Amino acid sequence: MENHDHISNQFDNDLESIRNHVLSMGGLVETNVKNAITSLLERDQALAEEVAKADFKVNQMEVEIDEECTQIIARRQPAAGDLRLVLTAIKVITDLERIGDEAEKIGRYAQTLASKKAKTGMHLELQTLGEKVSSMLNKTLDAFARMDASQAMEVVGLDIRIDEEFDRISRLLVSHMMEEPKNIKSMLRVSWCARSLERIGDHAQNICEYVIYSVHGEDVRHADIDKVKKEYLSKQE
Amino acid sequence: MENHDHISNQFDNDLESIRNHVLSMGGLVETNVKNAITSLLERDQALAEEVAKADFKVNQMEVEIDEECTQIIARRQPAAGDLRLVLTAIKVITDLERIGDEAEKIGRYAQTLASKKAKTGMHLELQTLGEKVSSMLNKTLDAFARMDASQAMEVVGLDIRIDEEFDRISRLLVSHMMEEPKNIKSMLRVSWCARSLERIGDHAQNICEYVIYSVHGEDVRHADIDKVKKEYLSKQE
Repeated sequence: MENHDHISNQFDNDLESIRNHVLSMGGLVETNVKNAITSLLERDQALAEEVAKADFKVNQMEVEIDEECTQIIARRQPAAGDLRLVLTAIKVITDLERIGDEAEKIGRYAQTLASKKAKTGMHLELQTLGEKVSSMLNKTLDAFARMDASQAMEVVGLDIRIDEEFDRISRLLVSHMMEEPKNIKSMLRVSWCARSLERIGDHAQNICEYVIYSVHGEDVRHADIDKVKKEYLSKQE
Repeated sequence: MENHDHISNQFDNDLESIRNHVLSMGGLVETNVKNAITSLLERDQALAEEVAKADFKVNQMEVEIDEECTQIIARRQPAAGDLRLVLTAIKVITDLERIGDEAEKIGRYAQTLASKKAKTGMHLELQTLGEKVSSMLNKTLDAFARMDASQAMEVVGLDIRIDEEFDRISRLLVSHMMEEPKNIKSMLRVSWCARSLERIGDHAQNICEYVIYSVHGEDVRHADIDKVKKEYLSKQE
């Protein structure tokens, strides 16, 4: 995190503590997401069950960090610039908690899919989507850890690739469903998992937007993000 | 909002201003959700287009209220109890903004569905789900307006009914898809709309949890909410 001459060392320590706690929470969420994807791909019922149960710890960490941030604002009464950093942490953990919820949902669907042993295909596509989402989440946490707005900008662009992959999976699911109507139920579960992965990308994008906002002190959310995405696309082509 | 003897009149005015702005934003989001549902049910392409475009105003309001809250915390440096009220507003608008996103998504799917003229059935079921979601959102904003924790507790229970309705629609969709595989693509769009409505219920639940948290000054999120839901179910049976 950058140095601010105008804030006390004690406040720096407070920020460092918040940052470490958010990163611990992020690490746990990352593990849950990875396990959720593995349980889905490998049809690993035991792992899926573990993932579905692991979310309570994420929720607990959110509550604790939220309280820590509130106490620090009340006690240190930071000026607007520093306040933004703490408010960023409060928002980041909300999205991390929701990513945890999505991992839990994937775990639940993976449990049912493993028990049904239905052939739904889509292994390669889900793997690709899973890898893109895991990588985006990892880079997001990294951008937060270093409060690196330019990295966060780049990560925002990755969400387009995830949306594209999700659209591709949706189209494939439709053909598969038409070909094998008896597997529709299972394939609908696969589609919920794909949707959850796509949502994780959206939450990672939110976190990146908070980082950019926090660093630049101006609001790049919403309107400007579309511009960033377009620039990213034009650089790729 | 309750009176707090220890805070200044000016701070009361600030809170009142935040409250009014959040309620304006809530009113706009409510309208967008209602229009999204109508456009879906009536296959009204013009209205669907309007909904898909209306979200920018919601985003703009979120940015403005977020800034207002940050400035008030920085300027007034409220104590922990009052600070919680402002932080509640910051979190409430995040969920309102995401509800707006879901309305926008429904609008986009409704646009395509209207243009395809595919028969997907489910009119009655979507209407029921839409009404439950609209009603929950309305009660949620009411609980926030009056900072009424016991009303918020009741509203949290409503989410169970929405989840049940969503599950019912998902089961019906599977049968419909099996019966008419050529309509699978359109029915998948209907399922995304149902999913978005269900998500709106989740966001409304989040807002209720913030209200309860703000009033009781203790964190009832996550763990205790399951208890509240169970109590609600047992009272209904």
